[in-house]
Amino acid sequence: MRESGVQQGLCLVNAMHITASVFINDDESGLHHDYDRWLEQLAPHAPTSRYEHNRTGEDNADAHLKRQVMGREVIVAVTDGQLDLGTWEQVFYGEFDGRRRKRVLIKIIGE
Amino acid sequence: MRESGVQQGLCLVNAMHITASVFINDDESGLHHDYDRWLEQLAPHAPTSRYEHNRTGEDNADAHLKRQVMGREVIVAVTDGQLDLGTWEQVFYGEFDGRRRKRVLIKIIGE
Amino acid sequence: MRESGVQQGLCLVNAMHITASVFINDDESGLHHDYDRWLEQLAPHAPTSRYEHNRTGEDNADAHLKRQVMGREVIVAVTDGQLDLGTWEQVFYGEFDGRRRKRVLIKIIGE
Repeated sequence: MRESGVQQGLCLVNAMHITASVFINDDESGLHHDYDRWLEQLAPHAPTSRYEHNRTGEDNADAHLKRQVMGREVIVAVTDGQLDLGTWEQVFYGEFDGRRRKRVLIKIIGE
Repeated sequence: MRESGVQQGLCLVNAMHITASVFINDDESGLHHDYDRWLEQLAPHAPTSRYEHNRTGEDNADAHLKRQVMGREVIVAVTDGQLDLGTWEQVFYGEFDGRRRKRVLIKIIGE
Repeated sequence: MRESGVQQGLCLVNAMHITASVFINDDESGLHHDYDRWLEQLAPHAPTSRYEHNRTGEDNADAHLKRQVMGREVIVAVTDGQLDLGTWEQVFYGEFDGRRRKRVLIKIIGE
C-alpha cells in the first residue's frame, strides 16, 4: 500500500495457482481447521479415482474444487491510503494441493 | 452512484462482517429460503461442538463457512453513471449469524 | 484488452445471468466434468419439488445454488496491456441452467 501511494482505490489480491485461494475471514486457528475438515467433506481427496481430472496423472482434482468454494481473489477498498477492512477481516492464502510455492498477485489502482 | 458522479468504473460492495455475505442473485423469496436450507445442509449449525472455532466461546463457526459459499463481495460495472446489472441481477446482503448490525462498504472508482 | 488501450488496471468479467458463472481454473475437460458431477451432488437438480423457488414455475433453483459455489465474476489484473494471469489460469463461462444465451460483461478500467 505504501509503495503504491494510492489514497483512494481498489486492491486486488489473487492466487496465481488454480488449486489455491485468497480469502478474507477470521484469524483464528480453530476456524482454519474447521475450513480444512469441511472442505474435505465437500470435496474428498480420496479415492482419487473418483475424479476424471486425476486420469491426467494428477491427484489434486479435489483441490481445484475446494478452491472454488473458498474463492480465487478478494478486492479490498483503499481509503486514505489504507486497506479498508472490517474489524475482524484478515486476508489469507489457502493452498489445497500443498505442493506449490505460494505466489499471490497484488494490484492496486486508484489515485 | 449519483453522489459519486462516476460515469465509467467499478463499484465494490462488500460485507464488513466475516459471518455475512454480499451476493448477486434473484429477488425471489422462495429462492432465498432455498439458500438458507441448502447452506444449513452444507454447513449445519448444530451440533456446535463439531467446530473447533466454537471452543473460543463462539457458536457461529457454521456462519463463517456459509459465508464462504455465498461470497464476501461483488463488483459491479458502472456504465453511463448506472450500475450495469443483468436483467434479474439484484445485490443482497446475507447474514448467517443473525446477531450483527448490518454494515456494508461501498467503494466506487472510475471517472 | 487491445481495444481498451489500458496498460495498468483491472478487468472485470461477470455473468449477466443468475444461473451462470464466470470462473478461473484449468482448461482440462476432465476437470470440467468433475465440476459438473460435484455441483450436482452439492445441489441436485431433482426432485425439483425440493426447492421453493421452483413453485414459481421455474425448475432451475439448483442452478442458482450451483452458481454461488462457482462465483459470478472474476477480476483480473491488467499489466503492460495484458491480462496478468497465472500459468494455468483460464477464464471460463459456466451455465448451470442450460437454456440461456451466453452473455458476459467485460469492463476494463485503468490507464
